[in-house]
Amino acid sequence: MSQHETPADPTPRSPTSTRRVLLGSAIATVGGAAAIGLAGGGLGARPSPPSPPEEVVPVFGAHQAGVDTPQQRYAMLVAADLTVGDAGALRRLLRDLTATIARITRGEDPPPSPLFRDGAVVPTDFATGLPPSRLTVTVGVGPAVFDLPGVGEPPPRRLRPLPEFEGDALDPRWAGGDLLLQICADDPQVVSAAMRSLRARIPGYARLRWTQSGFLSTPVDGGTPRNMFGHKDGTSNPRPGSAELEQTVWARDDEPAWFAGGTYLVFRKIRMRTADWDLTPRDEQDAVIGRRRSDGAPLTGREEHDEPDLEATAGGRPVIAADAHVRRVRGFSMLRRSYSYDYGQLIATAGGEPDPTAATQEHEHAPGTPEHTHGGHGALDVGLLFCAYGNDPDAQFVAAQRRSAAADRLNRFVTHTGSAIFAVLPGCSPEGYLGETLLRTPTLG
Amino acid sequence: MSQHETPADPTPRSPTSTRRVLLGSAIATVGGAAAIGLAGGGLGARPSPPSPPEEVVPVFGAHQAGVDTPQQRYAMLVAADLTVGDAGALRRLLRDLTATIARITRGEDPPPSPLFRDGAVVPTDFATGLPPSRLTVTVGVGPAVFDLPGVGEPPPRRLRPLPEFEGDALDPRWAGGDLLLQICADDPQVVSAAMRSLRARIPGYARLRWTQSGFLSTPVDGGTPRNMFGHKDGTSNPRPGSAELEQTVWARDDEPAWFAGGTYLVFRKIRMRTADWDLTPRDEQDAVIGRRRSDGAPLTGREEHDEPDLEATAGGRPVIAADAHVRRVRGFSMLRRSYSYDYGQLIATAGGEPDPTAATQEHEHAPGTPEHTHGGHGALDVGLLFCAYGNDPDAQFVAAQRRSAAADRLNRFVTHTGSAIFAVLPGCSPEGYLGETLLRTPTLG
Repeated sequence: MSQHETPADPTPRSPTSTRRVLLGSAIATVGGAAAIGLAGGGLGARPSPPSPPEEVVPVFGAHQAGVDTPQQRYAMLVAADLTVGDAGALRRLLRDLTATIARITRGEDPPPSPLFRDGAVVPTDFATGLPPSRLTVTVGVGPAVFDLPGVGEPPPRRLRPLPEFEGDALDPRWAGGDLLLQICADDPQVVSAAMRSLRARIPGYARLRWTQSGFLSTPVDGGTPRNMFGHKDGTSNPRPGSAELEQTVWARDDEPAWFAGGTYLVFRKIRMRTADWDLTPRDEQDAVIGRRRSDGAPLTGREEHDEPDLEATAGGRPVIAADAHVRRVRGFSMLRRSYSYDYGQLIATAGGEPDPTAATQEHEHAPGTPEHTHGGHGALDVGLLFCAYGNDPDAQFVAAQRRSAAADRLNRFVTHTGSAIFAVLPGCSPEGYLGETLLRTPTLG
Repeated sequence: MSQHETPADPTPRSPTSTRRVLLGSAIATVGGAAAIGLAGGGLGARPSPPSPPEEVVPVFGAHQAGVDTPQQRYAMLVAADLTVGDAGALRRLLRDLTATIARITRGEDPPPSPLFRDGAVVPTDFATGLPPSRLTVTVGVGPAVFDLPGVGEPPPRRLRPLPEFEGDALDPRWAGGDLLLQICADDPQVVSAAMRSLRARIPGYARLRWTQSGFLSTPVDGGTPRNMFGHKDGTSNPRPGSAELEQTVWARDDEPAWFAGGTYLVFRKIRMRTADWDLTPRDEQDAVIGRRRSDGAPLTGREEHDEPDLEATAGGRPVIAADAHVRRVRGFSMLRRSYSYDYGQLIATAGGEPDPTAATQEHEHAPGTPEHTHGGHGALDVGLLFCAYGNDPDAQFVAAQRRSAAADRLNRFVTHTGSAIFAVLPGCSPEGYLGETLLRTPTLG
């Protein structure tokens, strides 16, 4: 497996400068990709739509890619359970995954795998002709990893299973996991190719547990994307490169040394009852959120990025209600990197339960009728794959969600059905591998 | 419901010229959209990827949009069963769907619906800021529609349920349907918005039966897209605007007069055993298809669009084997408009059966082991939403599939799990509605 230990990156750079170069150059590269898309439009039976940005997101650095990377258009989250017996096997898996990630994010075939006869590989060429599309693969580990024999390092201090929240309706089919791969790219076929290359490496090491797939469509003006309720989502996110992001996301000084450069990822599958929402008058929708759907501005402000004024009153009542979403979650900073999902009827038709709480509003067909629940709104599964990065899940997501779960008017319209927490491994250099600081104990191999 | 009968299209044009204008202008518009994407890239927390083409695909014409329209990047297929009791109710539904489609494909809110209180509508503004993205909605009807009391016209001559083919493993959960909506656009959120606007119109008329979602990524050189086996798929499709397309797709002269301008759509959900495929040597993969994966050329040719030479031999044996896919399906013209899908583990995790025939090749973990079937390849559902338009399903898809099912080496790697056939309604003018020729009998209303 020597090829796994020295991924052949021709241009090793220092970890921090690499990421900084990326953030600075991402915009400029968009122009080149667009020009290629334009040239391609004249050929073949199907005019080519404009190509997504072509750039390669560097893998190596102090932090993993895919956290503060400007959000790509598509994501597949893949959770797996480890089947390895000790840290040595986990090290082999993580070395192999690192080498694979380094190659496929550059649009190259993965390295040969000992799992296949004759050194065969699962090639990525079914994405041939597609640009690297800013593919990133971000690796996290769940709490159980630290129980593995031979893992000598302590778990991150704040890696604890999430508590149960009021109103949770978690489905074990999409909860938990020992290993997370967050695969993001600007093209869905590139995401699919990456998933296929990666899962080919894990037999004997891990077993797939769940997958979730989402998208994010950015308005043409480059503004904040809208979620499935039509509201701008992510307005108050810390900006890339800001001190706030640094302080919010990356592991704190009191964490175990091996975790420096890491972070935590909280995942929640949030089903959104779009039928109920759509039947709610616009003014009430805005009151539920505390922001205007039209432009994202707080009810007390004029523009999207105005600070909500939680003290403002009108006619003796708060403009932003006591149970408005924006008030309930105010003051908890996290880097949200969520994706919308629309599974249509796939889950319900396959045997999953329709949402029994769907569509509680009055409308033409009464709740409980076949139109309503069977093949109706209850069968549609639409919502948000909520992903929040932060260095203190208890003080960030957990605290915010406790306040929200207790009294958020939005709860009438959403149900949390999936949940997981992972420690996102620190980045590594081209000579290293993801997890090297965790698994460096030399007694196992 | 008068607003449904006169959708306010400000620029009515003749049916044929409308569609031709679209085909001619699509390329030129790409540049404008790309420029907007570039400008947007500098704003906000997330640089905007290049925007998909901005153009609106006209709804009205001799034919429906979404058939010979250059293929968009995303599709959701929505099948529903009618719950209406007579042709009059079906007419109301189709009028309402037509008016809705006319509006939302221009990026406008749908017309008010009598199903909602106070004339409320399900707005499309959760796609606000996204371009119309060449949204099309194509409407088809299944065989049972012609049994509806009051439908005075005969069914299209060739609208028969598809026969069972050797090797079929059809799942009733994604088969059949009375009504099909093929929703396509260059942006997944626009597809989702359209689905939501449309399903809000159907309570009381129909019940959702199944949905399927796919994508299609066109290489930057504008060439033929690749399917999940890495092979170019669609090489031999008739070209838009060609006489071959006219003769292959649109209803023949011997069809009932009301069906003039219509066509048939054959849908098959084809699961692809990607793990088995990936473990098959490249030469054997090429022999299975009869074309080279690298460039799409037939094994007897040099370039993708060379005609396969089925007579060529080498060493006394045919170069393109007797059971090669390209030989089995050669000579059957249809307009394929398929999309790849990658559901990951969604279906299996939700309760669907894993594919029992998955991964029959040798590899590290033996077939039948937990790694193999549980949470392994068998749980992954990846493949092709095969969509073929043609005016003679028996002589086109059915004949080809019979030959393929009987002896196609590709059958080791694919399983047909879903199936449906629809008569795609003729187009209509801005003053009319989809289905008007079928339902014009004035005695019901």
